[in-house]
Amino acid sequence: MSKTMNAIMQDLGQQAVVASRSMRMAPTVAKNRWLTLSAELLRHGRDHILQANAMDMTAARERGIDAALLDRLELTSDRIETMADGLDQIAALADPVGRIDDLVYRPSGIQVGKMRVPLGVIGMIYESRPNVTADAAALCLKSGNGCILRGGSEAIHSNRAIAACLRRALVEVGLPQNAVQLVDQTDRALVGELIRAKGLVDIIIPRGGRSLIERIAAEATVPVIKHLDGICHVYVDAAADIDMALAIAMNAKTHRYGVCNAMETLLIHRELAVAMIPPLAAQLAEKGVEVRGCAQSRTICASWLPANDADWATEYLAPILSVRVVDDLDQAIDHISCFGSGHTESIVTEDYRAGQRFLREVDAASVMWNASTRFADGFEYGLGAEIGISTDRLHVRGPVGLEGLTTQKWIVLGHGEVRE
Amino acid sequence: MSKTMNAIMQDLGQQAVVASRSMRMAPTVAKNRWLTLSAELLRHGRDHILQANAMDMTAARERGIDAALLDRLELTSDRIETMADGLDQIAALADPVGRIDDLVYRPSGIQVGKMRVPLGVIGMIYESRPNVTADAAALCLKSGNGCILRGGSEAIHSNRAIAACLRRALVEVGLPQNAVQLVDQTDRALVGELIRAKGLVDIIIPRGGRSLIERIAAEATVPVIKHLDGICHVYVDAAADIDMALAIAMNAKTHRYGVCNAMETLLIHRELAVAMIPPLAAQLAEKGVEVRGCAQSRTICASWLPANDADWATEYLAPILSVRVVDDLDQAIDHISCFGSGHTESIVTEDYRAGQRFLREVDAASVMWNASTRFADGFEYGLGAEIGISTDRLHVRGPVGLEGLTTQKWIVLGHGEVRE
Repeated sequence: MSKTMNAIMQDLGQQAVVASRSMRMAPTVAKNRWLTLSAELLRHGRDHILQANAMDMTAARERGIDAALLDRLELTSDRIETMADGLDQIAALADPVGRIDDLVYRPSGIQVGKMRVPLGVIGMIYESRPNVTADAAALCLKSGNGCILRGGSEAIHSNRAIAACLRRALVEVGLPQNAVQLVDQTDRALVGELIRAKGLVDIIIPRGGRSLIERIAAEATVPVIKHLDGICHVYVDAAADIDMALAIAMNAKTHRYGVCNAMETLLIHRELAVAMIPPLAAQLAEKGVEVRGCAQSRTICASWLPANDADWATEYLAPILSVRVVDDLDQAIDHISCFGSGHTESIVTEDYRAGQRFLREVDAASVMWNASTRFADGFEYGLGAEIGISTDRLHVRGPVGLEGLTTQKWIVLGHGEVRE
Repeated sequence: MSKTMNAIMQDLGQQAVVASRSMRMAPTVAKNRWLTLSAELLRHGRDHILQANAMDMTAARERGIDAALLDRLELTSDRIETMADGLDQIAALADPVGRIDDLVYRPSGIQVGKMRVPLGVIGMIYESRPNVTADAAALCLKSGNGCILRGGSEAIHSNRAIAACLRRALVEVGLPQNAVQLVDQTDRALVGELIRAKGLVDIIIPRGGRSLIERIAAEATVPVIKHLDGICHVYVDAAADIDMALAIAMNAKTHRYGVCNAMETLLIHRELAVAMIPPLAAQLAEKGVEVRGCAQSRTICASWLPANDADWATEYLAPILSVRVVDDLDQAIDHISCFGSGHTESIVTEDYRAGQRFLREVDAASVMWNASTRFADGFEYGLGAEIGISTDRLHVRGPVGLEGLTTQKWIVLGHGEVRE
């Protein structure tokens, strides 16, 4: 059995490598034509996609899958339209491939610069949302790569229907069909083969729950771009504007609860605690947010529950907030370096030195000054779209857009120069 | 035993992590003071270092080690001076840490940019040259990292003497001594521990022979920056200036034989073969270079040996060159994509379209137009110094200087912005 799984992945991988060599050279106009045609085919194929999705939904209900997962799995006409619009938007983004940066003359007479080039073959592993099939393929191919897509087994019919549109569009615009390949079997062993397909797959991007990503990170031999947790902090410094601090804290916590860039812990300088905690408590109560506070905070707001050590290390993804009063900036930075997950950290202060120190000393994919953590996002950063967020340190960090799916090569323009 | 090795590496790793946190914040002036003081201590400690090296040389001779390795192992007053000069040169390079690129206003009002930050802890694994101890530590620390150095066991006394100077200088300038740690035992199992010290070591850079690097790449769980082969090509296009092509080919082959950026195979367009091969053969013969040619080339120069398939895939690192006559640019690019190692490839042509195609289509860390492959080098590219060369695709490609030892974080400067 394992042999068969290995053979299946070898075939997929070799086809992907061949296709990725053509994609590497594909003109921007062909890639954009593919995107807009795919969008059209998704719109025209709406009824067929909805039928396929209905099969997935029926099977999922029969297996007693929970409501949140059913919601992620479900496609509607609106969701298909949104998916198609997403492809049109990616068509409108600048193509990073072939861009030459920093081309300078060197004393030897040669010009040296760096050209952006695709990574090669990208393996995407994701869970129930079928729209990822279109989004991920679009970003991988616009950046000149081939992709192997492995969606959740519960979405297999939906994913097949979507991938069929993308592949038909590839043929029609003259690009290699195998630049988009769906792992068309639901056997879990295929994930294991995909993440160990060194030499065929250049990078793995997993999207989904923590357990999926942890397993992939532990077992993969192909490099993985991932993020596990989003334990994000806002630190309200002694020199903060209290109204600004309240607005940022409320936005970071309550704008959306289930997202990785939401604030989980609010750190407040002790000098501001008495002024800030009562209005904060009132606003959070109004939104129905449960607060778990340190002892000092609870002397100001006795109705807050006591926080324990586990709270500081928990990503709630829910209307729950932990609050700690800290003595100073050093204690805030220590708390963040101890409990933060390297995702997004923000300071609120009018003090130049405190802000500069925070920017420099806090080690996270995004570090902010007087802004809501919710801004940690590919669209907000100007990437146009994102395929995921990396809290790793190598290659790409934070929101990953088209450029994160490319690498560089050095180019040298000479006039016959030789080394002395 | 394996437990003990694991415990040793855990200790080294944890000390390195703590030290790297201070190094991350170290002011440029302190890092530069460390570099210049280390250079002084190496110069003042010359006699002691030479004594230590003499112990290594005696032991190596007793074990019957070959002359080439003895030469790499040997230190002289001149070599110590060169090593010290190298540290002074790195002190003079710009510090990449903290540099902010591309800071722009977004429609939301926030400013978004990227700040260069250190990678963390770098594990260097190298063979007999003791000077790597100083060079590697200097590049790792100047870029704000900590390092764990594992040199060849045959150089252990020399490496200890050099590392002692570097560590004494750290203490004297007030930087953490454990930012430079030498693996002070020669047990090979420690290399295995080092390359699997995930969470303690952020990246491994091996330097040495192919077998060392292959073993590390196969067994490491920490990401590795490496290059295996330098099978570099020069393609002389139909529209080449023949004198330029001869000069570039001779420089790429004969400037130095044992280096990874030397040319191993020369591809010549058939239209130029008759004009180019006779003077080329004469110049190569004068330098004592053995040529292994394809059948077509040997109809022009019958004295060349016949090349076989293994020749196209061999990095000679010696006065040997393989030559193939090709029909056109496509065949040249196909040959390179089949046999090249992704290191450095060069085209010689006056034809704009051919040069543009070569730059775009050839997939290698360095792609050149009318220049000798010998320019693929950190100094020539303006990096100031290099810790190694990467033929991998992720994170860094080609010569790796200070910037390649850093990563980025996003920074956001706001004025109280929240997401709508």
